[in-house]
Amino acid sequence: MTAHPRDALKAWFLGPQAENAELLERLVVESLRDHVFWRRNYHPEDGVAIREIDKRQEGYEEAVGALTQGLMGLLAELKRDVPFFSGRYKGHMIGEQTLASQIGYFATMLYNPNNIALEISPVTTRLELEVAEQLARMIGYDPARHWGHLTSGGTIANFEALWLARGVRYLPVAAAGAAADLGLGLWVRLPTGGTAPLAELPLWELLNITNEMALDLWDRLWQSAPRADVRQALANHSLAAIGYQEYSRRLALDYGDPLPAGVVLVAATAHYSWEKIARALGIGSNQLLHVPVDGRFRMDPDALWDQVRGLAHRRQPILALVSVCGSTEESAVDRLDQVLQVRARAETDLGTTFHLHSDACYGGYAAAVLRRADGTRRSAVEIRELAGGDWPSDDWAQAIGALSQADSVTVDPHKMGYVPYAAGAILVRDGRARHLVATDPPYLSPVDRAETGTEQFLGRYILEGSKPGASAASVWLSHKVIPPDERGYGYLVERTVAGARRLHAALTAADLSPFRVITLPLPDINIVCYLLCHPSLTTLGAVNEFNERVYARLSLARSDQAPEYIVTRTRLRSPAYDGAIGPILDSLGVASLEEWKTSGTDGLVVLRSTVMDPFLAAESPASDHIGGLLGALRRAGAAALAPEEGFTRRS
Amino acid sequence: MTAHPRDALKAWFLGPQAENAELLERLVVESLRDHVFWRRNYHPEDGVAIREIDKRQEGYEEAVGALTQGLMGLLAELKRDVPFFSGRYKGHMIGEQTLASQIGYFATMLYNPNNIALEISPVTTRLELEVAEQLARMIGYDPARHWGHLTSGGTIANFEALWLARGVRYLPVAAAGAAADLGLGLWVRLPTGGTAPLAELPLWELLNITNEMALDLWDRLWQSAPRADVRQALANHSLAAIGYQEYSRRLALDYGDPLPAGVVLVAATAHYSWEKIARALGIGSNQLLHVPVDGRFRMDPDALWDQVRGLAHRRQPILALVSVCGSTEESAVDRLDQVLQVRARAETDLGTTFHLHSDACYGGYAAAVLRRADGTRRSAVEIRELAGGDWPSDDWAQAIGALSQADSVTVDPHKMGYVPYAAGAILVRDGRARHLVATDPPYLSPVDRAETGTEQFLGRYILEGSKPGASAASVWLSHKVIPPDERGYGYLVERTVAGARRLHAALTAADLSPFRVITLPLPDINIVCYLLCHPSLTTLGAVNEFNERVYARLSLARSDQAPEYIVTRTRLRSPAYDGAIGPILDSLGVASLEEWKTSGTDGLVVLRSTVMDPFLAAESPASDHIGGLLGALRRAGAAALAPEEGFTRRS
Repeated sequence: MTAHPRDALKAWFLGPQAENAELLERLVVESLRDHVFWRRNYHPEDGVAIREIDKRQEGYEEAVGALTQGLMGLLAELKRDVPFFSGRYKGHMIGEQTLASQIGYFATMLYNPNNIALEISPVTTRLELEVAEQLARMIGYDPARHWGHLTSGGTIANFEALWLARGVRYLPVAAAGAAADLGLGLWVRLPTGGTAPLAELPLWELLNITNEMALDLWDRLWQSAPRADVRQALANHSLAAIGYQEYSRRLALDYGDPLPAGVVLVAATAHYSWEKIARALGIGSNQLLHVPVDGRFRMDPDALWDQVRGLAHRRQPILALVSVCGSTEESAVDRLDQVLQVRARAETDLGTTFHLHSDACYGGYAAAVLRRADGTRRSAVEIRELAGGDWPSDDWAQAIGALSQADSVTVDPHKMGYVPYAAGAILVRDGRARHLVATDPPYLSPVDRAETGTEQFLGRYILEGSKPGASAASVWLSHKVIPPDERGYGYLVERTVAGARRLHAALTAADLSPFRVITLPLPDINIVCYLLCHPSLTTLGAVNEFNERVYARLSLARSDQAPEYIVTRTRLRSPAYDGAIGPILDSLGVASLEEWKTSGTDGLVVLRSTVMDPFLAAESPASDHIGGLLGALRRAGAAALAPEEGFTRRS
Repeated sequence: MTAHPRDALKAWFLGPQAENAELLERLVVESLRDHVFWRRNYHPEDGVAIREIDKRQEGYEEAVGALTQGLMGLLAELKRDVPFFSGRYKGHMIGEQTLASQIGYFATMLYNPNNIALEISPVTTRLELEVAEQLARMIGYDPARHWGHLTSGGTIANFEALWLARGVRYLPVAAAGAAADLGLGLWVRLPTGGTAPLAELPLWELLNITNEMALDLWDRLWQSAPRADVRQALANHSLAAIGYQEYSRRLALDYGDPLPAGVVLVAATAHYSWEKIARALGIGSNQLLHVPVDGRFRMDPDALWDQVRGLAHRRQPILALVSVCGSTEESAVDRLDQVLQVRARAETDLGTTFHLHSDACYGGYAAAVLRRADGTRRSAVEIRELAGGDWPSDDWAQAIGALSQADSVTVDPHKMGYVPYAAGAILVRDGRARHLVATDPPYLSPVDRAETGTEQFLGRYILEGSKPGASAASVWLSHKVIPPDERGYGYLVERTVAGARRLHAALTAADLSPFRVITLPLPDINIVCYLLCHPSLTTLGAVNEFNERVYARLSLARSDQAPEYIVTRTRLRSPAYDGAIGPILDSLGVASLEEWKTSGTDGLVVLRSTVMDPFLAAESPASDHIGGLLGALRRAGAAALAPEEGFTRRS
């Protein structure tokens, strides 16, 4: 592509007024007919199972009637669905889908391949691995070393990341046991630099071997003894086989060392699903330790260092650290480059290390901004000069660029990839880790077991089983039209950032008197948070209640009337947001930091607008949706102050 | 519907020769245009974001070109996909999709609702809960007590079942701790019948409270103290919060009782994903104990009783028992009615109990055979008299009917529900269990937390997060046209059973000399397993290798030529299949039971044909696919005996 993506963008989506309807219909019908004729060309000599005369039977006609009427009912109901496509939707992290993803999904769904195994998805398993490789290149992973695949979404992708991380963290313990069983003397490099015989390491040091060294141990074990013996020896000592209850007992017996339970550090802004994941994995939500955030909602590296040091002193192993790239509430991007420095320092100074995961489910596609078509990296200064603005900052580029150094990264194509649900992705920097969670299906022969790569049987390495090949084709076709680099998704992300910054500036400058708008800091990507206040509201509770009412008027779920604009809301709570709340409370002026800290689960309600609309920042938009939203906020505020008048039900 | 479903069936699918292509195209285009005009009618005053002049720009045209060419490339590649729709596909558990499910998915995908929360899926969250209720009624659950939802597939559904089960099994321990913290004196009913004060129960008895009594304790706790206090007290003592490592230590401290690790009993035929699940949950695959199967591949109730008794004597808690309804390799249906009797006896005689889960991912829809339109139950004798055959047996009806008594059941609409991936489902008999795994997202207010039901925020209670509302609409529309009772899915299942029985009879009677066909016992549903042998093959290894070669010739993944018919294969291994292998080995005559037992992971290779084709058993089929498959088997056998001749590559 040589033309500016500004023009291409107009062909990427159906459009808020379905401007590209003809194109979509033409390609949908083409895909459908193409499938129909594939069926007809497959052994036409087999003859028809459904004859024309069958279609004249009463039962046939009844069934067609039921289908048609059922569909009409469904279509009628869907009119109450949310207009994500519209410039008036400024709510959750969901927008339009790309035309390519819609068509790719539909075309492939007619074939219904199952990406659990190549045997039942000879085409789409390959597309899935191609897509994973494209995403890996986008974030800067070495495609030769990485491994990745699609999942049903971010939660499962994050689950797998922590599941893999646990396997790698405990691998040296299993390797030490297995090596002893097999009579092998293995040496291992320690994070502080020296090497030591595996057999002589105490438990604490075994749990602080870097991922790379741990996986090297794995390789060496398999090279040193017959496969069946290694398999058995590892099973005798791995947490996956033994289970936590027995494992804890054994460690205490073998090492006489009742270490405290392993923890997972997460940014305070991490998605609530991390709690789910820690619970389900048996790690326990108490072991999920939150790292405070700074004023921009990013993980505070100094606070992180303090926490890591404290844990090392208590000899509490860290299974993983979860950094966030695009927090779900405010699109904050952790300074991953600084987080990596903390880990490097922990390795050399404290001899402690951990798996570093970036939850980039929302923000991962921002890496496309930094990627040229030829795969090389763009610098922040270059982008700024080209666009003539002050975005992105050098810090931002360094934070996003550091994704390439994370041990695992999750990215959801069904968020900033603008594809239909369900499409998440997990990318692992050192692909060998996948072997630690492999499970063999019954029909694999011993030969298969040794040789079966990911491409043959994806189900062996992942949490899920049957999975839609259509989803892989959907992402694949979308990437084909909108490449995950500066020409495609990079431009798309840049547009939404520009839109969010424009909205943020307008909210900050707005005169909505008698209301005052308080904006949270400029977002790192494209989620703008703000709240309304009014002189009559003098307590935190009153402000919260008022903003909940404003939200109710600008929400389909809460409002009985069709809202002019649609926003959503979240709650900032103590202690997670202690590091960011000060200036907001100062500006609000109704509660002190102490009062906020004791507000418990009430916290502070803020309104939240995700800008996924790529047209908001257009030079000459057809509709001024920023002005429109400001007007709607003022009217919602007025109605919320006088609820008995403003909230009449439609008859 | 009054007409016989025989005629309706012809309108349920696109058809092997795309006989219903016009119908599908009409409704797909209708759905698309309906969506297009919805967009145009939503604030038409907003104007267009994509002008006609934009479509004349070079960049726009390039993007359309990239999309069209990319799609053509995808469609060309998909020609190498698997013809699941054809009568020639007799392989994995996948067939056609219903027209309704294809159209429902596509129509809703254009809206892309996200069933994580009602706010972004006001229509489809409700459809999902309706579908779950329909499935619950199908298996005989009380809709007022049950809870259920859709998942991305069977593995996640089964994962959730065991996750919930663990929560319920450990609940009495948490409740005892919480009650002590809160100063409450609670009594509980024991499985042997008496009641006892919770505070005085030893650990073993706390881990052997029935699910219902455990959930009653839960209710009573919440009724007895302020919510915030109960929440905190439960968190102080629940495995989910504490995690296994700390929990094990505490139990040993509090109860001075180092019980062995909790186990999960699974039928030996259980899907390999149970190993994945046990590993991921931290239970450990060593704690997965396999219950031997009988000659029909069904869990042996006597062997189960011996195992339960042995575990009780060793005071090893049983977290759950997984029974199978429709094993993935041979569609065997456990005698769940007898399994329930074993549990009842364990409760009264041994004072031990457990969560009883039925993995009916494959076979669950068979329950529709037993269900009338009015919801009442049909008897086996009634069905036999109506159809004039010997199917189903009384035993079969009792086994399937007993699903209503399982604590949880998983059913995959994307298997015998004939809908596109991804659609699994979990159904829980006592819906209160969902509260044990609930996780709160940040924006819920304290009021929301107390009141938010499943319908408001599904993501709170499930493992996954974002999930496609399109999948729910797809199943919903399919159920609308093909009800999950005798008129719809019941008839469909009956047709495939009839097809499988016809194929089984033909294989058993076939003269394929010089080859001999050995059939495994008549399947409980519709998966037929068999193998070929030849006088020149005199060892197990030779027979296995030969059948692998036959498979290679009848498989797209292994064959370089387009196979005439497509089958798949599996391996029966010792000890899982010890109870079923005897007659097969006798018939084969090349190896003794002892030789087989030492064959390790080689086991016995059997060919496997799933009959999901509803037209195979038609009275006057257009094509004789049974005769066709027999001929193809003979030719594949001949080629497999002389590989150098028969396996030439296409140039």
